[in-house]
Amino acid sequence: MRVPYQTMYDEFIRVLVKYGFNRERADLAAKLFADASLDGVYTHGLNRFPKFIDSIKNGCVLVDKEPVLKERLGFLERYDGQRGPGNLNAYFCMKRAIELAKENVIGITAISNTNHWMRPGAYGLMAADNNCIGILWTNTVPNMPAWGGKDAKLGNNPVVFCIPNENGHVLVDIAMSMFSYGKLESYARRGKPLPVDGGFNKNGEITRDASEILETHQPLPIGFWKGSGLSLVLDLTAAALAGGRTSYQVGKLPYETELSQVFIAVDLSGFPDEAAIKNTISETLEDLHSSEPIDPDQKVRYPGEGMLRTREENLKLGIPVEESVWNRVLEL
Amino acid sequence: MRVPYQTMYDEFIRVLVKYGFNRERADLAAKLFADASLDGVYTHGLNRFPKFIDSIKNGCVLVDKEPVLKERLGFLERYDGQRGPGNLNAYFCMKRAIELAKENVIGITAISNTNHWMRPGAYGLMAADNNCIGILWTNTVPNMPAWGGKDAKLGNNPVVFCIPNENGHVLVDIAMSMFSYGKLESYARRGKPLPVDGGFNKNGEITRDASEILETHQPLPIGFWKGSGLSLVLDLTAAALAGGRTSYQVGKLPYETELSQVFIAVDLSGFPDEAAIKNTISETLEDLHSSEPIDPDQKVRYPGEGMLRTREENLKLGIPVEESVWNRVLEL
Repeated sequence: MRVPYQTMYDEFIRVLVKYGFNRERADLAAKLFADASLDGVYTHGLNRFPKFIDSIKNGCVLVDKEPVLKERLGFLERYDGQRGPGNLNAYFCMKRAIELAKENVIGITAISNTNHWMRPGAYGLMAADNNCIGILWTNTVPNMPAWGGKDAKLGNNPVVFCIPNENGHVLVDIAMSMFSYGKLESYARRGKPLPVDGGFNKNGEITRDASEILETHQPLPIGFWKGSGLSLVLDLTAAALAGGRTSYQVGKLPYETELSQVFIAVDLSGFPDEAAIKNTISETLEDLHSSEPIDPDQKVRYPGEGMLRTREENLKLGIPVEESVWNRVLEL
Repeated sequence: MRVPYQTMYDEFIRVLVKYGFNRERADLAAKLFADASLDGVYTHGLNRFPKFIDSIKNGCVLVDKEPVLKERLGFLERYDGQRGPGNLNAYFCMKRAIELAKENVIGITAISNTNHWMRPGAYGLMAADNNCIGILWTNTVPNMPAWGGKDAKLGNNPVVFCIPNENGHVLVDIAMSMFSYGKLESYARRGKPLPVDGGFNKNGEITRDASEILETHQPLPIGFWKGSGLSLVLDLTAAALAGGRTSYQVGKLPYETELSQVFIAVDLSGFPDEAAIKNTISETLEDLHSSEPIDPDQKVRYPGEGMLRTREENLKLGIPVEESVWNRVLEL
């Protein structure tokens, strides 16, 4: 089943207003959700929407709270997210980082006390659409064991890098676990094996069965000990910059909230060699395309490259939805 | 065989002076090499030294060249490394980033036209020893295929995060390939299988045989497509910030040189909540230690934790060396 973009967007606005958003904030939050599904990131668009509403109902997300500047330290602005909606808070912080970058080439903001930001890539694309490199990351509730351990001590702490490029931005939007929980759930639902090892089963064996990993909550970090280390330092850095909680401290709360996040924008317009930089980027991507593919029918692509085609298709044909989820939203 | 730290250090100075370093620069470069071996990073200490001398002999490294400020853009200082010694250039850039951080909480430098920086972690530890979080990365010659491709199009682009901590800094120092070439060579020499999958063999099969991967030059990125994407964006970001070459462009040169690197320092002394940040860091590391270990005899440790013990031991007993490599240095 497919639903037109505008229909989905309007439906999100209706529900958000019903749950206390003013019209302006409902518009933006609805757009962020609808755009995620439009771009094919279904896990963080429509499919996440009912859970977002739940987090309003249980008092985790405070719909009318906005980021408040705690202090400006040199080139860093630190905000208190006041447990407002994570997507609106993240949008605010990236917007502000871009503004700061337009003044000083590089802009950095950090936010404590915020909520799940939904689709991470959205804020990277904001930067790239404004001719900025966007770099951002968040911590999460502990949901991944440290390397060598059994119990979830680390977050999977998604990181985004987005590089502006005329023919489609380069967008890397990845969790530090090999598969996000959204992906694991999707594989488990379809009963499909993961394409590579994804975590441990209850016997401590490495498995490609997503449902076994959902049972143990022991996903594998990317690169084993390497992703475990990266997750830890991203967490500590975000908490330090934001003056907020680490994943460990988030884990002491009744639900995933009061997260720490960092947003960096680098304005390419601020460089005297902007044209040369852009040539370098497009030349390098072209070279990547010239890779000899392992599968002759699968040309090597750069991350984010497929997204524009999905966006175009979903805009024309409507966004594919799981009917049960769509009906749940209609009933909200 | 073990060699006292001072003996190794003095020997490095002797050779470096012979190859054209002035005494002050020889001292620093020798210290960086000796400290790497002292801390147990043998691949980038003594074992790398003969190759470093080769790169002076073949004109890749120009011993007396120093970084020159190209421009200051907002908070970013961009340097031309003039193909000077990569370790001295990196030391300079991290020192400068720390100075900038002491002025403005966050300091960022980038350098083009530089050489291999030897042990990446050294510059992270410099930051942490100055109460700064250190974040740095470099690109390299293409030495890893992009995900889905056969030919090496990406660098393995090492990244360092170092977080100050009273009982030993947290040090993540990792290449974007599952195993660095130094590690692959070490496993191949000892005929030992890799602990996890490391790359492709000539039949396109994933293998743990390091010698097979050295043959194909097809190491696996950490997290498969994820590390491939990360490598690409680290490369593009370093080249943009530095106004330098990407890995692809480095690959057009006769040898690995004219690299691009980024150095970021965040001064914790600049934060009004410095004490709270440090408590958060040590609390979070303590929690990590409380992990239930997979192997009851292997307590979970944070990255960098083992280093201080190795340092102490090597300082007391001497640094373990491969006799053949040590003799080669003595003959230089």
